[in-house]
Amino acid sequence: MNSDSIGALIFDVFGTVVDWRGSIIREGRALAERLGVEADWEAFADAWRGRYQPSMETVRSGKRPWMKLDELHMESLRALLEEFAIRGLDEDDIDQFNRAWHRLAPWPDSVPGLTRLRVKYPLATCSNGNVALLMNMARHAGLPWDAILGAEPARAYKPLPEAYLRTADFLGVAPSRVMLVAAHNDDLLAARSNGLRTAFVARPTEYGPRQSADQRAEHDFDYVATSMEDLADQLGC
Amino acid sequence: MNSDSIGALIFDVFGTVVDWRGSIIREGRALAERLGVEADWEAFADAWRGRYQPSMETVRSGKRPWMKLDELHMESLRALLEEFAIRGLDEDDIDQFNRAWHRLAPWPDSVPGLTRLRVKYPLATCSNGNVALLMNMARHAGLPWDAILGAEPARAYKPLPEAYLRTADFLGVAPSRVMLVAAHNDDLLAARSNGLRTAFVARPTEYGPRQSADQRAEHDFDYVATSMEDLADQLGC
Repeated sequence: MNSDSIGALIFDVFGTVVDWRGSIIREGRALAERLGVEADWEAFADAWRGRYQPSMETVRSGKRPWMKLDELHMESLRALLEEFAIRGLDEDDIDQFNRAWHRLAPWPDSVPGLTRLRVKYPLATCSNGNVALLMNMARHAGLPWDAILGAEPARAYKPLPEAYLRTADFLGVAPSRVMLVAAHNDDLLAARSNGLRTAFVARPTEYGPRQSADQRAEHDFDYVATSMEDLADQLGC
Repeated sequence: MNSDSIGALIFDVFGTVVDWRGSIIREGRALAERLGVEADWEAFADAWRGRYQPSMETVRSGKRPWMKLDELHMESLRALLEEFAIRGLDEDDIDQFNRAWHRLAPWPDSVPGLTRLRVKYPLATCSNGNVALLMNMARHAGLPWDAILGAEPARAYKPLPEAYLRTADFLGVAPSRVMLVAAHNDDLLAARSNGLRTAFVARPTEYGPRQSADQRAEHDFDYVATSMEDLADQLGC
């Protein structure tokens, strides 16, 4: 694997670059304190994320027209506020809580690692998050993307082939010269089956202390790294 | 016009942010020196840009399917190399020359002005340039965009309404809270007719010393500025 022949790096974001679970738990607790409500925010965060794939599947399958992830998040949030019997939020509170996904905190190595990688390669998102979500997150967290791409500009949620291939096409780089960086084996397998290169970055506590999946690279990916800084080392950045 | 109610700034790029004419002339002269050919590079730059609107019109009108600006630029370049009887370029030379549009130089006030504006507002492109062109230009020139948007993600060339409205939609900001910054009266009029706010930045030598059009704001735009730094001053950045 010659790192010089790589023309662009594209990144999964939720879990790979930012700690969605820790961030949502913190936002839930802050909201609860402000409004005087109580809930198990760890369970709430897991349940919110648990509805992520099923909600996108209604769009991927064609059962519903295109919807942004912000809208899918909002549907799930309203259902979960009922399910967890969390009351006392007005519409503005609900909207602000839904935008917690725009304020997710990066893993400690993400900004320094990306900053090093960017000197050598163009960096773009390849996330199921919508453009506004990813752009606001980047401004909030200082993520140095060269372009915000992924499901919304491609009009296809990962792991559909178009999500990867249209992202490469926007970048003007052949898929074989684009490398997806992700903490998830299935995302990388889908990218590889569409001709992209692959780099696994381990995030063994993304789903909390009892995470079982994605503890390690389960396939022969082009790079396997313990952090963004480690990936930068391996790519000679 | 309350600048606090503006949610995002979007920018025309060719002419407004970068000096396409000066840059293309310099690239032509450098190429000519390297290959030992001669041509009137001022006339060549003007002729290349002269084919810009007609080439996009074949796509806007529906006569041809979607084509990136890189492809339209390449068609025009091949025709003009014939017309100007410029010989001796191999395919790699032609490809590199076509990518001169990825390397356009910013006006001197662009980077400092954008850097100040970005502290207060998200900044995105709203250009007819394709994503790769604009992203490579940003990396080359140090343009601090938060997102690369415009014709290609919107699948519509300006001044079609979708070019402005889909850009606002990607940003998650109502059109009435998005302001287009441009050096061209017609671009701003089209944005305004779609409900966007408007800021004119004068670039009276974009087309060279004999430019007649767009010397000044010909309509009552929300802001009229002499540079990006002046616009930053007016917006309290």
